[in-house]
Amino acid sequence: MQFPLSLIITRLCLPPCCQLLKALTPEESTHCQHGLYFEDGQRRVDYVLTYPLKKQNAFARSLRRGPHHISEHLRHYTVKRAKDSLSPPSSPRADTELGCPGETFGGHEDHKTFRREEFEGKLREMGLELEKDEDARIQGVGFVKIHAPWNVLCREAELMKLKMPTKKVYEVKQSSGVVEKISSLVSKVLEPLHPHVEERQPKNIKRLSHTFSREKQHLFDLSDKDYFFDSKTRSSILLYEEWANYSVFYKYQPIGLVRKYFGEKIGLYFAWLGLYTQMLIPASLVGVIVFLYGCATVDDNIPSMEICHPRNNITMCPLCDRVCSYWKLSTACGTARASHLFDNPATVFFSIFMALWAAMFMEHWKRRQMRLNYEWDLTGFEDEEVSGDHPRAEYEFQVMQKSLSKDRKSQHKIEKLSCRDRLPAYMTNIVMMLLMIGVTFAIVFGVILYRISTKAALHMSSNPITRNHVQLTVKTTAAIINLVVILILDEVYGAVARWLTVLEVPKTDKSFEERLIFKTFILKFVNAFSPIIYIAFFRGRLVGRPGNYLYVFESYRMEECAHGGCLMELCIQLSITMLGKQLIQNNLFEIGIPKLKKLIRYIQSKQGAFQEEERQKKLRRYETDHFLEPFAGLTPEYMEMIIQFGFVTLFVASFPLAPLFALLNNIIEIRLDAKKFVTELRRPVAARAKDIGIWYNILRGVAKVAVIINAFVISFTSDFIPRMVYQYMYSPDGSMHGFVNHTLSYFNVSHFQEGKETQEPLQLGYPIEICRYKDYREPPWSTNPYEISKEFWAVLAVRLAFVIVFQNVVMLMSDIVDWLIPDIPKDISLQIHKEKILLVDLFMKEEQGKVQILESRLSTGGKENCSRSNNNNSSSMVAHPRSGLHTNSIKSL
Amino acid sequence: MQFPLSLIITRLCLPPCCQLLKALTPEESTHCQHGLYFEDGQRRVDYVLTYPLKKQNAFARSLRRGPHHISEHLRHYTVKRAKDSLSPPSSPRADTELGCPGETFGGHEDHKTFRREEFEGKLREMGLELEKDEDARIQGVGFVKIHAPWNVLCREAELMKLKMPTKKVYEVKQSSGVVEKISSLVSKVLEPLHPHVEERQPKNIKRLSHTFSREKQHLFDLSDKDYFFDSKTRSSILLYEEWANYSVFYKYQPIGLVRKYFGEKIGLYFAWLGLYTQMLIPASLVGVIVFLYGCATVDDNIPSMEICHPRNNITMCPLCDRVCSYWKLSTACGTARASHLFDNPATVFFSIFMALWAAMFMEHWKRRQMRLNYEWDLTGFEDEEVSGDHPRAEYEFQVMQKSLSKDRKSQHKIEKLSCRDRLPAYMTNIVMMLLMIGVTFAIVFGVILYRISTKAALHMSSNPITRNHVQLTVKTTAAIINLVVILILDEVYGAVARWLTVLEVPKTDKSFEERLIFKTFILKFVNAFSPIIYIAFFRGRLVGRPGNYLYVFESYRMEECAHGGCLMELCIQLSITMLGKQLIQNNLFEIGIPKLKKLIRYIQSKQGAFQEEERQKKLRRYETDHFLEPFAGLTPEYMEMIIQFGFVTLFVASFPLAPLFALLNNIIEIRLDAKKFVTELRRPVAARAKDIGIWYNILRGVAKVAVIINAFVISFTSDFIPRMVYQYMYSPDGSMHGFVNHTLSYFNVSHFQEGKETQEPLQLGYPIEICRYKDYREPPWSTNPYEISKEFWAVLAVRLAFVIVFQNVVMLMSDIVDWLIPDIPKDISLQIHKEKILLVDLFMKEEQGKVQILESRLSTGGKENCSRSNNNNSSSMVAHPRSGLHTNSIKSL
Repeated sequence: MQFPLSLIITRLCLPPCCQLLKALTPEESTHCQHGLYFEDGQRRVDYVLTYPLKKQNAFARSLRRGPHHISEHLRHYTVKRAKDSLSPPSSPRADTELGCPGETFGGHEDHKTFRREEFEGKLREMGLELEKDEDARIQGVGFVKIHAPWNVLCREAELMKLKMPTKKVYEVKQSSGVVEKISSLVSKVLEPLHPHVEERQPKNIKRLSHTFSREKQHLFDLSDKDYFFDSKTRSSILLYEEWANYSVFYKYQPIGLVRKYFGEKIGLYFAWLGLYTQMLIPASLVGVIVFLYGCATVDDNIPSMEICHPRNNITMCPLCDRVCSYWKLSTACGTARASHLFDNPATVFFSIFMALWAAMFMEHWKRRQMRLNYEWDLTGFEDEEVSGDHPRAEYEFQVMQKSLSKDRKSQHKIEKLSCRDRLPAYMTNIVMMLLMIGVTFAIVFGVILYRISTKAALHMSSNPITRNHVQLTVKTTAAIINLVVILILDEVYGAVARWLTVLEVPKTDKSFEERLIFKTFILKFVNAFSPIIYIAFFRGRLVGRPGNYLYVFESYRMEECAHGGCLMELCIQLSITMLGKQLIQNNLFEIGIPKLKKLIRYIQSKQGAFQEEERQKKLRRYETDHFLEPFAGLTPEYMEMIIQFGFVTLFVASFPLAPLFALLNNIIEIRLDAKKFVTELRRPVAARAKDIGIWYNILRGVAKVAVIINAFVISFTSDFIPRMVYQYMYSPDGSMHGFVNHTLSYFNVSHFQEGKETQEPLQLGYPIEICRYKDYREPPWSTNPYEISKEFWAVLAVRLAFVIVFQNVVMLMSDIVDWLIPDIPKDISLQIHKEKILLVDLFMKEEQGKVQILESRLSTGGKENCSRSNNNNSSSMVAHPRSGLHTNSIKSL
Repeated sequence: MQFPLSLIITRLCLPPCCQLLKALTPEESTHCQHGLYFEDGQRRVDYVLTYPLKKQNAFARSLRRGPHHISEHLRHYTVKRAKDSLSPPSSPRADTELGCPGETFGGHEDHKTFRREEFEGKLREMGLELEKDEDARIQGVGFVKIHAPWNVLCREAELMKLKMPTKKVYEVKQSSGVVEKISSLVSKVLEPLHPHVEERQPKNIKRLSHTFSREKQHLFDLSDKDYFFDSKTRSSILLYEEWANYSVFYKYQPIGLVRKYFGEKIGLYFAWLGLYTQMLIPASLVGVIVFLYGCATVDDNIPSMEICHPRNNITMCPLCDRVCSYWKLSTACGTARASHLFDNPATVFFSIFMALWAAMFMEHWKRRQMRLNYEWDLTGFEDEEVSGDHPRAEYEFQVMQKSLSKDRKSQHKIEKLSCRDRLPAYMTNIVMMLLMIGVTFAIVFGVILYRISTKAALHMSSNPITRNHVQLTVKTTAAIINLVVILILDEVYGAVARWLTVLEVPKTDKSFEERLIFKTFILKFVNAFSPIIYIAFFRGRLVGRPGNYLYVFESYRMEECAHGGCLMELCIQLSITMLGKQLIQNNLFEIGIPKLKKLIRYIQSKQGAFQEEERQKKLRRYETDHFLEPFAGLTPEYMEMIIQFGFVTLFVASFPLAPLFALLNNIIEIRLDAKKFVTELRRPVAARAKDIGIWYNILRGVAKVAVIINAFVISFTSDFIPRMVYQYMYSPDGSMHGFVNHTLSYFNVSHFQEGKETQEPLQLGYPIEICRYKDYREPPWSTNPYEISKEFWAVLAVRLAFVIVFQNVVMLMSDIVDWLIPDIPKDISLQIHKEKILLVDLFMKEEQGKVQILESRLSTGGKENCSRSNNNNSSSMVAHPRSGLHTNSIKSL
C-alpha cells in the first residue's frame, strides 16, 4: 500500500498556545496569531491540510501509520459536490487522510503531485481559497491553509439546512409555580458547581432559530459575522481552565463550549459521560446503604450464627480426594459471616433498584439529548446528511476491481458488491468471531484447570505453611492471571475486530463504524464477563456428590464454592476485575500511551536536527500541532464506559459497591478525557450528530440482559431462595433456625469409591460414619439413596418462578418508567411550540411590511420594482392572487 | 350547555354524485357541478361550513348531539394564526364543530350570530374568500362556502414546510440483479391484483420534492395549478369502483388515492389494515398446516390411544359429590382425541412462529410507513405541527374559570391546571377503572357460578336425557352468556372511558385522544380476555383433591377440566368469542347502525315537509351530504383490529386457526370500512399524520404480552411439558407408553369425607376400593398420603424453566428480527440519498445560471439589477465575497 497523497488535517488553534497568548506582550501575540491568518493578515485560516513533500523519511512515516487509515481519495471524484467542499466548519468531512489505494494507480511522485493538485483545484472550484506553505520548518511536510469565504459558508449552510439564530429575541418566561421556585432554589444552591463561563447572552433570553436561507438573510443576526458560523476558537481558553482540570471535578461541565469547540459528536459524548456520572451518585449512595445494612445485620443472621456456634459441630465431607480430611462446619464461620454482607434481602431490593435505575438513565439520556438538540438548534436536522453516507473509497475500489475483471464477460456496469462477493469475508468473520470467543472460553477453562491442579499440588505438599495458605495463594494468582489475560486479549480483540471489519468492505463510513463497534463490543464483553459468568452460574454446580464426584481429565475434581454460596467469590472476582481494569487499562494506558507516542513522534522528527529549541520557538501554530497524536475516534472511550456500565448493572446483585467504584473512576475519567482532547490530541474534525448512535442500542441491550442476569444471580447464586423456601415451607416454627441442617445432605463414608477415601481422618476420638455435604439429596437410609430429593425440585421450581416474576416485574416497571417520563422535556416542547408561533408571527409581519413598501412604491409611480421578488405573490391582500404564474415567468428570466 | 355557533363541516364532493356524474348528460353535469363552485362559477369551493339558522328545531338537534362534541370556539382567539386559516386543504383543523361552552358567554341568538360573524371576519382576514348560502333548501341550516386563493395556499404551505413536487423529474433506475428480476417477475404475476388506477406519471419516473418556498416558486411544477395543492376530488370515482367494493377483495388497495382523498391519517389506517391482512395470509397458512398436522397424527398419539384402549380400563373418581358416579377413563376417548388436534408439538412451533410473525409485522409496518412517508413526501415533516398541539377549548375554559375564581386572591394570571386541580378527576379515573375491571371479573365469576350450579342442578335431575346433555347445555349457554356480556360491556366501557377522559380535562386534542384510547383499550381488553384467561390458567387448578375438594360457598365444587387438559375448552371459548364478536359486533353493528342513523337523521329533517322527492333532486352536493353521519374518528376501527390482533397472537398456542378466521373477517372488513368512509359518512377532515401514533405502542405491548402468555399456555395449559418430562425422565423405555397411568394419582375411596361419597356406585361386579384422579400426589400407602409428590415439583420446575427459555429465546429472536430488518427500506434510503444529490445539483445550476445572467447584465451596462436579489451573494465566483452585508442592506430596504 502506498500513500501518494497524505493530507493530514491539523488543528487550527491549539489551546496551550492560546493559553500562552494571555500572558504575551502585544508583539508576541501578533506573532502567534500570524499562523491563524493568510499572509495578507485578513483572511482567517479555517482549515489546514498537511502532506508529505518528496522526502523519503516523511513518506516512510506516513506509511508506517498502519492499514486502518484508508485512503479516501477516490470518492472525491464520485460523490456529490456538497460534500466536496469543507465550508461550514461545523460539519466538514470526517476523513483525515487522503490517498490512493493499491498499486493500480501507479506509485510515481509526479502522479501523486498531480492528484493532489487536482484535488486542490476542486477545492478552489468550490469557492474555497487556498494558500500553500512549503518552506519546510518541519522536514518533509507541506501545509495548505484553507479559507472559506462568507458566501461559500452561506451556500453550504443553506444546502445543509443548518438552523441559525435569527435577529428575533424573546424572553423565556419563568413561571411562578411551586416547582419552579424549588428548582430555582436548587439552581442557586448548585451555583458554585457550575463552571465560570461568560455567556454571550442573558440566560432567560433566547434567540429564535430558523433554517438558514440566503433569501431571508436579513432576518438573521449577522451583527458578528466572523462568529456567525463559527465561534469555536474563542472558547478554547476557557475550556482549558474550567474543564480539563482535575481541580474542578465537582463542577458541571461546560457542555455548550465543548460542543462549540469540538463539534456535536464529542459534545454529546461528554454530555453522556456527565449524565452517567451524575446518575451514578444516587446508585452508589443506595449501594453503600445496602452494604452497610449487610454489615449491621451480620450479627442477627441466624444461618451464620448457626454455623459459627461451637456446639453445632457438623462434620463435613472432605473437599478433595485422599489428601483432604473431614472438616468441621464451624471453621467456615468467617466466610459465612462475610457472605452475609453481599447476600442479604437488601440485595434483592438493590438489584430491582438498579434495573429501574438503568431504565431511568436511558430515559434521562433521551431527555438530555432532546434538550441538547434543542439548545444546539439541531431539532429539524436530519441525521443522514452528515454521517458518512457516501461509499467508502475502499468499497468503491473493490467495486471497480470487480467491474474491471468482469468487463470482459458482460457489458453492464457493476454498481455494488453482491452477497456472493462478500460471502468469503462474512464466512471469515463468523469463523474468526467464534474462534475468538472459543479462545476466551478456553482461557477461562485454563484458569480453572490451573486453580484445580495448583490446589491439588499444594494440598499434597508436605509443608504445613504452604497448605494453610492454599486458598489465598490460588485465588489471588488466578484472579491476577485472569486480569492480565483480559487486558491482553482486550488489545488483541480490538485489532482483530478492526481487521475483520476491513475485510468485510462495508459500504459507508457509518456502517464501517457500526460493524466495528458491534464486533469489538461482543469480543470485549465476552472477554470481560466470561470468568465472572463461570463463577456465578457454573462453579460448584457440576461437582457431583461424595462417592460420585465429577472429574476433569479423570483426576481433578471440579471446584466447589466455599460454604455460604459462590456469591462471595463472585464478589471478589468482580471487584478485582473492575478495579484492575479501571486502574491499569483506563488510567495508566490512557495517560501513558498518548504521552509516549507524542514523545516518539517528536524524537523521530528531530533526527539529525540541531538547534531544536531555537526552531521550536519559530514554529507556527499548525506546525507544533503536527506533533500531536491524531484523533482516533470516540469508540474506545465509549467502549470503556459501556463495559463499566456492564459491571455496574449486570452483577450488581452480588456487588453493591460497584456503582461507587465506577463513580470514583468516572470523576477522574471526565477530566482525563477532557485534558486528552484539549492538549494531547490534534483537534478532531468536528462532526455533527444528533444522538450517540449505536451506543444507545448497546446500552439498552446491556440493561435488558442485566435484568435476566440479576434474576439468575439472586435466585441461583445467592442463598436467598433456599432460605425463603425453608422459612415458609419447611421450618417448623417459621424462623430460620435449622436452615443450615436442612441444606446439608447425609453421606455414609463407607460408600466412598475405592482409593478416593481420605487418608487423614480427623482425630475426634470417635470413628466418623456419616459426613455432610451441601446438596438436596436423599439420605443413605432412604429407598433411593443419594437421589435428588423432593426439596431440590421444590427449591428449583421456586428459583425458576422467582426468575420469571423478577424478570417480568422489572421489565414492566422499566416500561412504565419509559412511558411515564416523556421523551421530550415539557419545558422544551413548550418552548419549541412558542418559537414556532413567534416565527410565524415574524414572517407574517415581514410580509405585511413588504406589501406596504410595495404598495407605497406603486402609488408613487416609480417603475423601480427592484426591491425583492415575489412580493405580490406572497402577500395575502393583493387584488389578483392568481398572478403568481406571471411573476414566475419574470423570475425565471 | 348551549351551542351558539355550530358550524358543521360537510364534505366537498360526494362520490355517489360523482359516480352519477359519469352517466350524466353535459347539462346535468353542469348542474351537479354548480354546487362545487362559487356563484361566479370560477372559484372552487374548498370547504363548506354549516350552521343552524334561528329555528328552534335545528337548534334542539345540535343540542342533542351529546356532550362529547365540545366547542372549540375559544381557541381561535388564542392560538397561532397559522391554525386559524384552513388553507392547505390537506391539513385543515380537526375540529368539526365550533361553539361556546358553558353559560358564561350568554345564550342569546344575537350573541351567537355576532360570534359567528366575528369568526367569519377572522377567516376573511386570513385571505380566505367566503360565500353564504342561506336560502334554506334544508330547513334551519345555513351554509358558508369557503374558497382558499392561490396565494393563501402558498403562504400556508411555506409556513407548514410542506414538501411539494418540483419540476425536476428523474428516472428511478431498475438495477439488473437477480433479486430485481425476481421481484419484477412477481409484480408481473400480481399485476391483475393491483387496482386499475390511472397514474398521472410513468411508474419509474419520480418528481423531486422539496420544501415549498415562494422565493423558489419557479422550481416547482406549477403546470397544473388547480391540482398542485389538492387533487383529492378527482380520485373519488375511482375509489368507489376500485376500492369500496366487495368484488375486488383480492386486489391491493389504491392507498395513494385513499390518502389523496381522505388525508394521510385515514390513508395510514387503510395501509396498516392492508398490511395486517396481507401478513395474516402466511400466518393462516401455517396455522392450517399445524391444524392438519394435528388431524393427521391423531391416530399415532399414544396417550389418546391408551385412553381409548378398552383394556386399559381405569376407574376414575366421580366428577361431583354424591350424585355423580365413578367413571371409566375410556369414556373420555373422544375428548382426548380432539385435544390432540390443538395440543401437539406443532403448537409449540406455531406459537414461536407467531411471536416472530408479530415482530415481523411490526418491522414491516415500520418499513411500509417509511415508504409511504417517502412517497407522500412527509419525510422532513415534523409531527407536532399538525396534530392538535394547542390547548383544547374545554381546558382553556377550566383555566379561565380557575383564574376568575382566584383573581380576587392573587394577582398573577394562572396559565395551567396544577396537579391539585386535577386530583379529583384522577382519583375518579382510577376508582372507576378499578371498578370497571372489578365488574368484569365479577361477571366472569358469575358465569363460573352459573356453570357450577347449573351443572349441579342438572346432574341432580332425574331425567336421564337432561343428564346426558349436561355438558353440552352448560357449555353452550355459558359461552353465549359470556359473549352477550362482552358485547354489552364493550359499548358501556366505550362510553365510560369517554366520560372519564372528559372529566380529566386533558390539555390538547392529542392527549385527549391518547388518554381515551388508553382507557378504552384497557377496559375492552380486560373485558374480552378475562374469561379466556380464567379458562387458560385458573380453571381446574384450584380443585383440591378427592376427599379434600375446594368448595365455593361451601356447597359447589370448583370446575375441573375434561380429561386431556383445559386446552380444548380454551379453544372452544376462544373460537366462540372471536367469531361471535366479529360477526355480530363488527359486521352487523358496523353496517347496520350507520344506515339506521342515516335513516333517522333523514326522517327527522323532513318533519312536515312535502314533495320530498322533488326537493331532494334540487339539493346541491353539500346539502345532500348534510344528511350523512359525521366522522367519529378512527378509534373504533383501530380498536376492533387491535382486539383481533390480540386473539390472533395471545392464545395462538391453543387455537391455530385464529389467523384464518381473522383473515376472512378482514378481507370483508377492508371493503366494508372503505364503503362506509366513501358513502355512509361525511367526508372526514383530512389530517396529516406520519405514523399511527399510540396504536403502534399498543401493538408492541400486545406482541410482548403475547410471548409470555403463549409461554404459559404451552407450559401450563397444554400437556406438552408433562409429556416431555415423562418421556425423558420417567419412561422406562423412552416412549410415551404409560404416560396416562403416570399422570393419575391413587385415591382410597374409604377416605371420602362424610356425606360426599357417591350415591350411585358403578356396577362393575366388584367393589371399588381405589379410584384415580389427575394430579401428582403421593398414593394412599405412602408415608405422606395425598401430599404433593416429587414428580409434581419436577414437572413444575420444568414448566417454569420452559417459560424462561421460551420467553427469552423468543424475545431475543424478535430483537434480532428487529435488528436485521432495517427500518428504512434500502431502495427508499438510496432514493432519498439520490434525490438529495439531484436537489443540490439543481440549486447549484440555478445559481450559476443566475450569476451568468447577472454578469451579462452588468457587462451590458444596464442599471436594471431587477431580476432577483442576492445573486452576487450566492455566487461562488464573484470577486468580492464579503459584499454580502452590502447586498443585505439593499434587500432590507
